[in-house]
Amino acid sequence: MLKYSDVDASFRALAEPTRRAIVERLSGGPATVSDLAAPFDMSFAAVVQHLQVLEGCGLIRSEKVGRVRTCRIEPMGLAPLADWVAQRRAFMERRFDRLGELLAEADSSEDPQASTQTPIKDK
Amino acid sequence: MLKYSDVDASFRALAEPTRRAIVERLSGGPATVSDLAAPFDMSFAAVVQHLQVLEGCGLIRSEKVGRVRTCRIEPMGLAPLADWVAQRRAFMERRFDRLGELLAEADSSEDPQASTQTPIKDK
Repeated sequence: MLKYSDVDASFRALAEPTRRAIVERLSGGPATVSDLAAPFDMSFAAVVQHLQVLEGCGLIRSEKVGRVRTCRIEPMGLAPLADWVAQRRAFMERRFDRLGELLAEADSSEDPQASTQTPIKDK
Repeated sequence: MLKYSDVDASFRALAEPTRRAIVERLSGGPATVSDLAAPFDMSFAAVVQHLQVLEGCGLIRSEKVGRVRTCRIEPMGLAPLADWVAQRRAFMERRFDRLGELLAEADSSEDPQASTQTPIKDK
């Protein structure tokens, strides 16, 4: 089962373009905080705050060795979000399948001599 | 190719729990604006605003017949978001595959007489 808060936290975290860019960068491999901060026109502290949000909702993790903090993607971090999208699609597909069955039923029960203008009735 | 703005608009739209709940409801079938507004403790105008955001970024569409506006899910509306997640996962998997190959190479070139404590070197 999905934890509502996980989906909510992931969507909120990734609605921010800088945080999405950080996740894009880290899905290609680990990076230090300095490396991650380099392309952004913002303070180091602001980047650290974004990293804390991402780490807080389980999208990344970080480890400090000596004075260097290295960040990595959390392999299962995107799962709640991917599951949410997959569930919406599953619901839609089930509906389309049902619609297809109704159309097939209407088609097979149709009298070939009858008018072709018979409207397909709601279930 | 992904349009950056599509992904951005979708994440922003779905970071709001009410809008996510509306998409959840509509993935099960079409609904009128009144039906959609009923479960929420907010003004009808506020719900209409949320619907406009969702329609603006292509997640839903609506049609007015007489005085009744009916909303439906846009079947391909979640595609940019699903693609973004799939791309991140593809990047991660490629990395893990590469890591697996490096480990396999290290394993096959290992001298069986040598110490088992030989560390696996970085690429």
